[in-house]
Amino acid sequence: MLMPANTLMNQPAISSALPDAVIKALRTVIGAGKANLHEPSFNGNEWVYLKECLDSTFVSSVGSYVDRFEKDLATFTGARHAVAVVNGTAALHLALLLAGVKEGDEVLLPSLTFIATANAVAYCKAVPHFIDCNEHTLGVDPAALRDYLQRSCEVRDGHCFNKSSGRIVRALVPMHTFGHPVDIDGLLAVAADYQLALVEDAAESLGSYRAGRHTGTHGLLGVLSFNGNKTITTGGGGAILTNDAALAKLAKHLSTTAKIPHAWEYSHDVVGYNYRMPNLNAALGCAQLEQLPDLLANKRRLFEKYRSAFADVAGVQLFHEPADCHSNYWLQTLVLDEKFAAQRDAILQATNAAGLMTRPVWTLAHQQLPFRDCPSMPLPVAQSLAQRLINIPSSAFLGAVGAA
Amino acid sequence: MLMPANTLMNQPAISSALPDAVIKALRTVIGAGKANLHEPSFNGNEWVYLKECLDSTFVSSVGSYVDRFEKDLATFTGARHAVAVVNGTAALHLALLLAGVKEGDEVLLPSLTFIATANAVAYCKAVPHFIDCNEHTLGVDPAALRDYLQRSCEVRDGHCFNKSSGRIVRALVPMHTFGHPVDIDGLLAVAADYQLALVEDAAESLGSYRAGRHTGTHGLLGVLSFNGNKTITTGGGGAILTNDAALAKLAKHLSTTAKIPHAWEYSHDVVGYNYRMPNLNAALGCAQLEQLPDLLANKRRLFEKYRSAFADVAGVQLFHEPADCHSNYWLQTLVLDEKFAAQRDAILQATNAAGLMTRPVWTLAHQQLPFRDCPSMPLPVAQSLAQRLINIPSSAFLGAVGAA
Repeated sequence: MLMPANTLMNQPAISSALPDAVIKALRTVIGAGKANLHEPSFNGNEWVYLKECLDSTFVSSVGSYVDRFEKDLATFTGARHAVAVVNGTAALHLALLLAGVKEGDEVLLPSLTFIATANAVAYCKAVPHFIDCNEHTLGVDPAALRDYLQRSCEVRDGHCFNKSSGRIVRALVPMHTFGHPVDIDGLLAVAADYQLALVEDAAESLGSYRAGRHTGTHGLLGVLSFNGNKTITTGGGGAILTNDAALAKLAKHLSTTAKIPHAWEYSHDVVGYNYRMPNLNAALGCAQLEQLPDLLANKRRLFEKYRSAFADVAGVQLFHEPADCHSNYWLQTLVLDEKFAAQRDAILQATNAAGLMTRPVWTLAHQQLPFRDCPSMPLPVAQSLAQRLINIPSSAFLGAVGAA
Repeated sequence: MLMPANTLMNQPAISSALPDAVIKALRTVIGAGKANLHEPSFNGNEWVYLKECLDSTFVSSVGSYVDRFEKDLATFTGARHAVAVVNGTAALHLALLLAGVKEGDEVLLPSLTFIATANAVAYCKAVPHFIDCNEHTLGVDPAALRDYLQRSCEVRDGHCFNKSSGRIVRALVPMHTFGHPVDIDGLLAVAADYQLALVEDAAESLGSYRAGRHTGTHGLLGVLSFNGNKTITTGGGGAILTNDAALAKLAKHLSTTAKIPHAWEYSHDVVGYNYRMPNLNAALGCAQLEQLPDLLANKRRLFEKYRSAFADVAGVQLFHEPADCHSNYWLQTLVLDEKFAAQRDAILQATNAAGLMTRPVWTLAHQQLPFRDCPSMPLPVAQSLAQRLINIPSSAFLGAVGAA
């Protein structure tokens, strides 16, 4: 419908000051041209290893690159064991099963997370139970969680029960948002007091450390992702980290259809999964892992560039790693001051229209259609942040010396 | 315990006649040296496409090779739509969900199948219900199935009910064993009469046809696998075939976390899966699909070589494609006469010891630990065949002109 000219003329001018300032700051770092949110870099032995893998004909679920990738991951992260699987979602699913999550259990997880965390709970026929996050880590807030559990749950017979639903609350799955480590020590204490298995969703945080210890290695199990948008990629891929040899063995067993080893017999002792990472993808992973230190250095350099560029942009903070943490800076993140939250969509529209890919945080998981009826604590911090977070172009090469 | 010498001396000599004859026949075809059960052949554009894919940096879940692989698969099979996923098991899982299989339903499937068919039913929280097979197809026997359903099930309110369990029997999942097409026309008639959704497990039968129509395209949905041991491989991979555009769209939606398309928002309308085939694996698949006609010709030539070699071996039949079928001869198969069934393990031991990899058929699914309590019809044919089938080395290159 056309509006009369005088009505249009009476509209207050929509200010483009903040969107323009954001674009200007991004251009300072990125230069002219387009930028995606996150692209992989293949600067090392990627070709060599893929070709070797192809020439060996071992491209599938058995092969030397899978074994090497697992060893290299364990070495890099300091986990005693790493089990490579087909993607981070599969890793989460298996980790929850290994943590003892059963049909009808509840699992505590942040509402501020990618949907895969909640989906993995659903695959176990368990119920996601959503927890608020902390503004300084973007992850689960231990103090808020403890306060909530004190009110809503009770421990008896060695289990934590939700007093309202009567269900066992079996596990806690913190997620290291955009690569920034959560307050894991606080969460380990809560998990111990409430008999919760702690599974770290470290899908985004390869190369991130809290108190010198790699994310994904603090709890019973941790999960990594090597999707195409992650710090390193295997095409599709993920891994389970654990210090428990029996759990690692079981993870590998469950990921390879639970086949009982035998020269020619095909017998299986439980319902297993086809979750093993193919050797072809692991070959790419081995080369990428060699590049990881350089990629991390570039991503940190990109953060420093953005910090300078955004220092004088009023109303916007560039998110920095929490105290006592060393973050991989997977996705660089702007946090809008509360009074500028209403400008988020204008910034998203202007930057994307300018060829600079940005995006808001995921729709909060407790608001997603499949999980709207799941239990939740009050989520004021997550709800506020969901209106104020903007991820900006974060590819490692943007931080390389001489870039832009 | 040591036996007295005279007892040992009184044992009849264990005859090695049949194992020796099998090895001799295999050597006629294979020549000297070792042979695996099935190895891939990379004779075409495999490296070119992998390198192109890597250079594009689109190695993950979005990319032109995935789109092309789906188009090429549809063209080759004659299906209207193909959706590429991470492996055959994921394809089965999604196909069952798309066929309407719900928690507590029963799904009819052969006991003579790889465990993935039954696992996929379990992922849906449905119950596998095992069916006998036919000696001439190695797949579900339509006449035996009809007879069994007449006795054990009833159709009311548009659904088939198991009279004993009271559960809805929702779907029928025939599997084309070792690539040989099942009697699909007979099964389509049974499915129509009993209100069963028909999902073809064509994981083993890419390149196999019944009455000129490709396996996996007769029912509501079909499933392919490109695991490393299959006729063509993508490292790990699978696909869903269907002629129904809405189901194809839903398959792709469910395989990509059920994300609602949007430039930057991350909202999801149902519990989805991370089942999309990575572009890197699809690049390999595109090259392999170009090679498929040659691979099929070589596999058929290998069958002819084995037919000559085993023509005079008493007690053993080389399994040949059923009437009105054109099989891909994925795994070449010996069928022992019943009176020689007791020699199966001696043949397996002798051939594997000689470096010629052979294996029996899978332990029947109704005997596998996770499925022992599931409903089943009498399975005399499957139980007999399970003692008498031996797969022999089947790599396409063994049938190439000039091989051995």
